[in-house]
Amino acid sequence: MSTFRHFEDFEPGQVIPLGSKLVDRDEVIAFATEFDPQPFHLDEEAGKASVLGGLAASGWHTSSMLMRLMCDGLLLASSCNGSPGIDEVRWMRPVFPGDTLNATAEVLATRALRSRPGLGVVTLRMTLVNQHGVPVMTLENSILFGRRENAA
Amino acid sequence: MSTFRHFEDFEPGQVIPLGSKLVDRDEVIAFATEFDPQPFHLDEEAGKASVLGGLAASGWHTSSMLMRLMCDGLLLASSCNGSPGIDEVRWMRPVFPGDTLNATAEVLATRALRSRPGLGVVTLRMTLVNQHGVPVMTLENSILFGRRENAA
Repeated sequence: MSTFRHFEDFEPGQVIPLGSKLVDRDEVIAFATEFDPQPFHLDEEAGKASVLGGLAASGWHTSSMLMRLMCDGLLLASSCNGSPGIDEVRWMRPVFPGDTLNATAEVLATRALRSRPGLGVVTLRMTLVNQHGVPVMTLENSILFGRRENAA
Repeated sequence: MSTFRHFEDFEPGQVIPLGSKLVDRDEVIAFATEFDPQPFHLDEEAGKASVLGGLAASGWHTSSMLMRLMCDGLLLASSCNGSPGIDEVRWMRPVFPGDTLNATAEVLATRALRSRPGLGVVTLRMTLVNQHGVPVMTLENSILFGRRENAA
């Protein structure tokens, strides 16, 4: 298979490895400072006093780290045309600085679009697993991909 | 009502204004560079050539801007204990630099937790509307809040 993926290259059941990301403490605090300045995302003591059990990444930061892995592992070498949305984002375990997160994308479904013949929708289930093998996050993402017959 | 909200302060049907955010071009590009480096989030010409119609914010950036409005307008003055996840994220329209996004949170449901008597779950539907009055994003977020009788 070419490493550049079009709609036709996805089949239900495929599992695509997306690589891994080391969670950096400065990045956790920088993201939280800009977008999610709740104390348990900024400060170790506040994290310990919370249900998270320690300074932990914002769920939106974890989601954004996953998005970067999706870009590098899949989307930037594809005919991706964006996404109408996300379902069932689940933050199952806290993500701590020093964790290494490994991402995979499983193809759940593919659907050609009658309304836009050049595009198709691929529904992916993403899973982030930490260095202990424990899933920390899952989500389902429907993404628009261009069809190969449309390619230049 | 106190401006500091506990679980008991939420009732289905309440609509909580969360304030507004001007979308900054440099911030759009900075976020995309770190987390979502697809061309249509980085470059005007690539955006025009895409389904987005112009350089547009990553959906995860829009989500993160909404999270900051939620923090400033609600969560930082509350007994928020984090969130197990998000449902039905819908990116309905592109978000462009120069747009002003206004956020509201509608309380859909509240549920005391039998398993954790000090906490309750509040399900909120967030809506981001641009300066033309057009909804650009919605999501549903279940958030854990401490109960008032537990407060010090």
